[in-house]
Amino acid sequence: MNTDEPAPERLNDVDSDAVAGLVAKIESKPEVASTHFRANVVWKGGFTSEATVRDFAPVPSDEPPGMGGSNTAANPVEQVLGALGNCLAVGYAAKATALGIEINDLQIHLEGDLNVQTFLGLDPAGNAGYEAIRVSVELDADAPPEQLARLHEQVVATSPVTHTLKRPVPVDVQLA
Amino acid sequence: MNTDEPAPERLNDVDSDAVAGLVAKIESKPEVASTHFRANVVWKGGFTSEATVRDFAPVPSDEPPGMGGSNTAANPVEQVLGALGNCLAVGYAAKATALGIEINDLQIHLEGDLNVQTFLGLDPAGNAGYEAIRVSVELDADAPPEQLARLHEQVVATSPVTHTLKRPVPVDVQLA
Repeated sequence: MNTDEPAPERLNDVDSDAVAGLVAKIESKPEVASTHFRANVVWKGGFTSEATVRDFAPVPSDEPPGMGGSNTAANPVEQVLGALGNCLAVGYAAKATALGIEINDLQIHLEGDLNVQTFLGLDPAGNAGYEAIRVSVELDADAPPEQLARLHEQVVATSPVTHTLKRPVPVDVQLA
Repeated sequence: MNTDEPAPERLNDVDSDAVAGLVAKIESKPEVASTHFRANVVWKGGFTSEATVRDFAPVPSDEPPGMGGSNTAANPVEQVLGALGNCLAVGYAAKATALGIEINDLQIHLEGDLNVQTFLGLDPAGNAGYEAIRVSVELDADAPPEQLARLHEQVVATSPVTHTLKRPVPVDVQLA
């Protein structure tokens, strides 16, 4: 905005102008919507490693002692649940703001079932990954239940990490 | 071990006894292999949130400014790439140790393609998640190339996060 007036208080502290600007940019240049994300991981010995994204501090990874780790950080499959919860949080904040709903509090509880036999080489043809993931969302927001149900439906239907998990993604891993 | 001798130096600093113990336990009681992982996410305003696993420090999440975020941390889809890289690192450490291969250095570079139109509501029937993920592994290890190729094949075939991404996972999200 080209004025000297102070910015109005933002609903849910969401930068709606930035989101609207991105939408407008994509509507005129759809190729802008094709994004590429990156991460780098460095092994630190044993079952520890660190993941670095852009110029943020590295985030540590480890396994619990029962899995042979040194128990200094969340393990990779727990990190997947965290990423899913964080993605849903962005979704609720974005869609609630677009619908004019103020969020008072939002907590997301995630749980996944995983059989470790395939990872350990005991069931080579089995599924090493999550068999199912359940998410319970505690949303305290000033809106009638039917509007919150509509919000919830929009969030789940458009969540990048939810789609990534629900759909088969081609993952190509090459030794350099 | 029931001796007073110092523990031998561990290959790749991997606790092979713990891994072997888990395998033995599962071979006698297969139900031990069914594990459940959990995470909790708390929304912190705007597009920021924090994911907590067990009693580890919360890990922050945010979006870049171009996506309407305040750019204080990796975003959820970048976190997914980090989790995949961390999972592959555990796999290389575990399988290399089992094969008697010493790892000198291991770095994993991950990249994913994602179209943001569906998240932004511009393509409701589209794919909000990753369309493809590419991983390049720089492995410096003391073994002939054919053994490293066999190691690589084992790691990719048994990686929990790789399986989670490659297969469709039922994700059930409920408003509490």
